[in-house]
Amino acid sequence: MSGAIRLAVIGLGKIARDQHLPAIASSDAFELVATVSRDGARSDGIPHFEEVGDLAESNIGVDAVSVCTPPQVRRAVAQAALARGWHVLLEKPPAATLGEAEALRDLACARETTLFASWHSRHAAGVAPARAWLADREIRSVRIAWREDVRVWHPGQAWIWQPGGFGVFDPGINALSIITHILPRPLFVTAADLEVPENCAAPIAGTVSMCDSAGVNVAMELDFLQQGPQSWDIAIETDAGTLRLAKGGAEVSFPDGRQPPAENDGEYPALYAHYAELIRAGESDVDLAPLRIVADAFLKGRHRQVAAFIE
Amino acid sequence: MSGAIRLAVIGLGKIARDQHLPAIASSDAFELVATVSRDGARSDGIPHFEEVGDLAESNIGVDAVSVCTPPQVRRAVAQAALARGWHVLLEKPPAATLGEAEALRDLACARETTLFASWHSRHAAGVAPARAWLADREIRSVRIAWREDVRVWHPGQAWIWQPGGFGVFDPGINALSIITHILPRPLFVTAADLEVPENCAAPIAGTVSMCDSAGVNVAMELDFLQQGPQSWDIAIETDAGTLRLAKGGAEVSFPDGRQPPAENDGEYPALYAHYAELIRAGESDVDLAPLRIVADAFLKGRHRQVAAFIE
Repeated sequence: MSGAIRLAVIGLGKIARDQHLPAIASSDAFELVATVSRDGARSDGIPHFEEVGDLAESNIGVDAVSVCTPPQVRRAVAQAALARGWHVLLEKPPAATLGEAEALRDLACARETTLFASWHSRHAAGVAPARAWLADREIRSVRIAWREDVRVWHPGQAWIWQPGGFGVFDPGINALSIITHILPRPLFVTAADLEVPENCAAPIAGTVSMCDSAGVNVAMELDFLQQGPQSWDIAIETDAGTLRLAKGGAEVSFPDGRQPPAENDGEYPALYAHYAELIRAGESDVDLAPLRIVADAFLKGRHRQVAAFIE
Repeated sequence: MSGAIRLAVIGLGKIARDQHLPAIASSDAFELVATVSRDGARSDGIPHFEEVGDLAESNIGVDAVSVCTPPQVRRAVAQAALARGWHVLLEKPPAATLGEAEALRDLACARETTLFASWHSRHAAGVAPARAWLADREIRSVRIAWREDVRVWHPGQAWIWQPGGFGVFDPGINALSIITHILPRPLFVTAADLEVPENCAAPIAGTVSMCDSAGVNVAMELDFLQQGPQSWDIAIETDAGTLRLAKGGAEVSFPDGRQPPAENDGEYPALYAHYAELIRAGESDVDLAPLRIVADAFLKGRHRQVAAFIE
């Protein structure tokens, strides 16, 4: 493939408008050739379609798509795109269930197209330095605190409370995508406590206890009703002191107080640079570990009903 | 390896005593050399140990183990066995979470030992004929009814109600192990409704709706409080009529009323014959699809609290 990769964005909700379209606009590797969305929102001057089928039947050449719809419809959209030979980037989480995500992985493999199950938080500026520093350390324990105000960060996103929307695990999976990337051993869910509003299908708060195969404990606290200061923090205690990630991985501080300067241009530009590399190399990147931990937390967790959530 | 495979059974609960020990006794391929169980129940004349570590430190030669403990401790026991180079058969479900099961699969692969994540219902007499008959048919829909009285079939098994015990999905996963073996395409959970007693962590009844990648619907009903006739039935509607499996897969009937004679000696003798074949061939058999469907049902399902269950 020579020249820019001709890209269509499918699903024009908050994340597409806030992150994907600006990152694509600033990328030399991609050319935005179309948008697809049922609700009619569109980018000025770019051809727009209501359905993937309408785009496919147009005369617009497409090499790749980014699927930014809510997770509940991602499998059907991505399956249609892969079947046409298009490369596919999936926003996180890659699907509403593990079965859907594994089927997409198998389909991309059979079709020899690129599938990128993206985890934007893995591209946060502090994550690569944290991973490099931890490689030489003995890890003793990990604490995750992910507390945000859903009314501020997810206005009108009703899908988040529906089956397959994951509730507070929609942000929480970002923390899981970081720790599964920077810790050396796989994690097992040992216990979980999930608080589910009586009018919702997904939890609004919870705790998850994990351990790795060497017995290191990882504790996660999730809250979607946090007032005041918001927390997207990970503290990793090691034999050389405590490493801290803050602001969702954007900031890292080492035990000596050192804070390395940011090494990339932000999560989504780095994410699109990786997508372009995968396409050029004919490879896929599908790590389902964060989604598997969420599924295991629901499987092994106690689900407790709490007061209704009214946005 | 020549001669009988020297086997230890770890966990001597109901399933080990009812099924594993008789199947091993009737097998020429295996020789029972030890049992391991904390509660002291043992088989007459066979060396017995309270912990896997005690067996390992004895002078008894062991080639392989069968792990029949409750699922919550299976990962730790199996990890220790694989680390010693022993082959491992896991009773179903293979672990309490998907993460645990995948880690065991990866460990067996790295150690080059046999791991058999067994699904006894796949060896029920009607399953192989059903699979062969379905291979040439167009499948239109599938209905599963799995209704049994937990007080009759699982007396005193408190672990079934604890996190990782799966509740009514402990029998229900047997149905899933059959349909994932005889249907041609992978299944996706589209919806689930789970009824969880207020004093339990796992459901006592539920429904799961699934579809495959071609849009075929699969509906499952689970009930753990069935009085009177018990049901372990699967009906598969095809372009050539309806195939029915009854009694947990033991009986198959084709649309013309024909019922083929049983082709094997029962689930567990067939299961142990397959285990011996895997060990002789240096292979593993780890299909996690049934467990993944259960996890996806918990992930995507609505969890509803119902009256307490008192055995």
